[in-house]
Amino acid sequence: MSVYKIVELVGTHPESWEKAAEAAVNRAAESLRDLRIASVSDLDMQIEDGKVVAYRAKVKLSFRYEGGA
Amino acid sequence: MSVYKIVELVGTHPESWEKAAEAAVNRAAESLRDLRIASVSDLDMQIEDGKVVAYRAKVKLSFRYEGGA
Amino acid sequence: MSVYKIVELVGTHPESWEKAAEAAVNRAAESLRDLRIASVSDLDMQIEDGKVVAYRAKVKLSFRYEGGA
Amino acid sequence: MSVYKIVELVGTHPESWEKAAEAAVNRAAESLRDLRIASVSDLDMQIEDGKVVAYRAKVKLSFRYEGGA
Amino acid sequence: MSVYKIVELVGTHPESWEKAAEAAVNRAAESLRDLRIASVSDLDMQIEDGKVVAYRAKVKLSFRYEGGA
Amino acid sequence: MSVYKIVELVGTHPESWEKAAEAAVNRAAESLRDLRIASVSDLDMQIEDGKVVAYRAKVKLSFRYEGGA
Amino acid sequence: MSVYKIVELVGTHPESWEKAAEAAVNRAAESLRDLRIASVSDLDMQIEDGKVVAYRAKVKLSFRYEGGA
Amino acid sequence: MSVYKIVELVGTHPESWEKAAEAAVNRAAESLRDLRIASVSDLDMQIEDGKVVAYRAKVKLSFRYEGGA
Amino acid sequence: MSVYKIVELVGTHPESWEKAAEAAVNRAAESLRDLRIASVSDLDMQIEDGKVVAYRAKVKLSFRYEGGA
Amino acid sequence: MSVYKIVELVGTHPESWEKAAEAAVNRAAESLRDLRIASVSDLDMQIEDGKVVAYRAKVKLSFRYEGGA
Amino acid sequence: MSVYKIVELVGTHPESWEKAAEAAVNRAAESLRDLRIASVSDLDMQIEDGKVVAYRAKVKLSFRYEGGA
Amino acid sequence: MSVYKIVELVGTHPESWEKAAEAAVNRAAESLRDLRIASVSDLDMQIEDGKVVAYRAKVKLSFRYEGGA
Repeated sequence: MSVYKIVELVGTHPESWEKAAEAAVNRAAESLRDLRIASVSDLDMQIEDGKVVAYRAKVKLSFRYEGGA
Repeated sequence: MSVYKIVELVGTHPESWEKAAEAAVNRAAESLRDLRIASVSDLDMQIEDGKVVAYRAKVKLSFRYEGGA
Repeated sequence: MSVYKIVELVGTHPESWEKAAEAAVNRAAESLRDLRIASVSDLDMQIEDGKVVAYRAKVKLSFRYEGGA
Repeated sequence: MSVYKIVELVGTHPESWEKAAEAAVNRAAESLRDLRIASVSDLDMQIEDGKVVAYRAKVKLSFRYEGGA
Repeated sequence: MSVYKIVELVGTHPESWEKAAEAAVNRAAESLRDLRIASVSDLDMQIEDGKVVAYRAKVKLSFRYEGGA
Repeated sequence: MSVYKIVELVGTHPESWEKAAEAAVNRAAESLRDLRIASVSDLDMQIEDGKVVAYRAKVKLSFRYEGGA
Repeated sequence: MSVYKIVELVGTHPESWEKAAEAAVNRAAESLRDLRIASVSDLDMQIEDGKVVAYRAKVKLSFRYEGGA
Repeated sequence: MSVYKIVELVGTHPESWEKAAEAAVNRAAESLRDLRIASVSDLDMQIEDGKVVAYRAKVKLSFRYEGGA
Repeated sequence: MSVYKIVELVGTHPESWEKAAEAAVNRAAESLRDLRIASVSDLDMQIEDGKVVAYRAKVKLSFRYEGGA
Repeated sequence: MSVYKIVELVGTHPESWEKAAEAAVNRAAESLRDLRIASVSDLDMQIEDGKVVAYRAKVKLSFRYEGGA
Repeated sequence: MSVYKIVELVGTHPESWEKAAEAAVNRAAESLRDLRIASVSDLDMQIEDGKVVAYRAKVKLSFRYEGGA
Repeated sequence: MSVYKIVELVGTHPESWEKAAEAAVNRAAESLRDLRIASVSDLDMQIEDGKVVAYRAKVKLSFRYEGGA
């Protein structure tokens, strides 16, 4: 039977949480096979000089596990 | 005294979680009376071929309860 | 084997959380069969002009499932 | 865009949690369209005279929402 | 050693959760020194006449603590 | 857009959790503007010589934020 | 140094959660020494024939530990 | 009014979580009166040499409380 | 001192959650050294045409960490 | 098969949480057989006259269950 | 009846979480009256150049509430 | 935009949780680039012959993600 692994990534984007989350998915897709659901586990913002400079989305991604840590 | 019921819906949209959540609210509003707060209980993304194809928002909606399950 | 369904209702009462929760149970009992446990998942208060005007109890009720959503 | 609804059911079976959960899925499938994932939110056991007489699985089921409560 | 305090604010905006969260950050930045991370603890929507009229983001903000409640 | 702040108070009363929670609301209403929902986050009891001497309710209150910590 | 133990009891009363919780405290006080805080971990109701017949409060009690399980 | 106590046990079995949980119930039933619901709070597995050698179920059992710790 | 790493895998099996969890353990054991406890963090089911076609168990596995991500 | 029981103790020490937790383990070890893991479920501090006078650690201990409550 | 307020502070110290938590208590004690329990809600570490440079403890402090936000 | 990955490690030390957590950070720093925050997700103790023989800290570490699982 197939086995999946879950990794947790944090994407960052100056405009929105959607783009921050998508950045994490896109980076993972370069090396991971058969990505499926990406669920959001946390949202936050980086602040500098009293301004929001980046939106960050923590996402859990599952993909087909080929063994290894 | 008035009694409210809570339903949990999942809205889906290719562009944003706001539109996904709004889709769920709009569908519910067609048949439910006196919708009030809609709180978000989960956000995730559907992925195909390594791309985000849809944003999904799980929302809890409360509305006036008329009896029934 | 029997199957049960769980609904979440919010009862409201100006005097106490017990009466708020009971209001939810009584309304459900008019149309649902074989109610069993009602567990409390949240308590809050409505405030107007700095006064508590209603106690609200969110309760999860299980009852015999006959099919349908 | 499609909207899904989530219902919470409790299935019961004298032999295993798998069969208890399956009982809930089968009952729901008689009347709900396009069932997808069923996630387990709780497991417990009924005891009589110091013996386990039934396994119970609480499952959350999502299915295509056609409107209504 | 430096000590930080955490406040919880709710921002509101008719267009998006990003702007709602940013509204809370901007208001806090008028009087608080050295704001750092702002993490999202809840998202919801206000509904009127079956329409989403505002997105709300509850955010936890940490800033340098100068003493007091 | 309006911004709200959340404070967490603990009210105490020898008779009931309703009165304990109301005590917290009343004290806050003396100095805070536009109080809205007060949600209960914890209930406990103080015990002396094996007797319950006070009921305590921890409540989260939201009110219009004018700036400051 | 003193060591405390925590037990979890469920009190039951036909009238209120306060009296249900107090019943648990009173029963424990008959045999346990130096009871301190009793925090509420769950509230529910027993229902018969569609009526609330008892309020139940699950409380966690700490008391001086003299050894043993 | 009757008072119940809750104990948390971990049962172990080489074949299944159902049997692990049942082992805990059976051991408790030898000395505790009027056992009612047993809810599962955790499931895990013991591994030796890369093989699952035992399934373990942590269960919370309630029974009539006669006093004592 | 030894350091352990935790990975989260999802095993799948058409018959039971025990076999699904075991599938995840067995796959990990092919490449990871000194596996210890495997705790279950989620159980769900895949449904096709109203039937359960697979049980899935999400498990957290700890093993000796040799460095790397 | 062996069955384990879990007790929850609170240790107290004026210097550190490690010593507070160890105090709870040592007291339990005087009367309980085959103690295994002790996991920390809460940390807090007692304050008098604005000073920390004790660190407290709440720990869950599992040990071989011989029957009884 | 007395009303208490809860504030959440983050203390930082290069040596230990005890000293980090104590730093938060000491700073608060300069301006708040009648501090009581301080419970830990989170522990983390700051890292620079691969080294732990500070331990941080997030603590919730309750103190007598005199009104205000 | 930069993407971060989160790994969960368990450090062990005979003397304190601070040293246990630091051990995990130090091991990770040998192979991971740009480590930032390390948050504690669990603390426990290993017990042998009724004595605490090791403190263990489970920490979540974020570091710059270069791709891969």
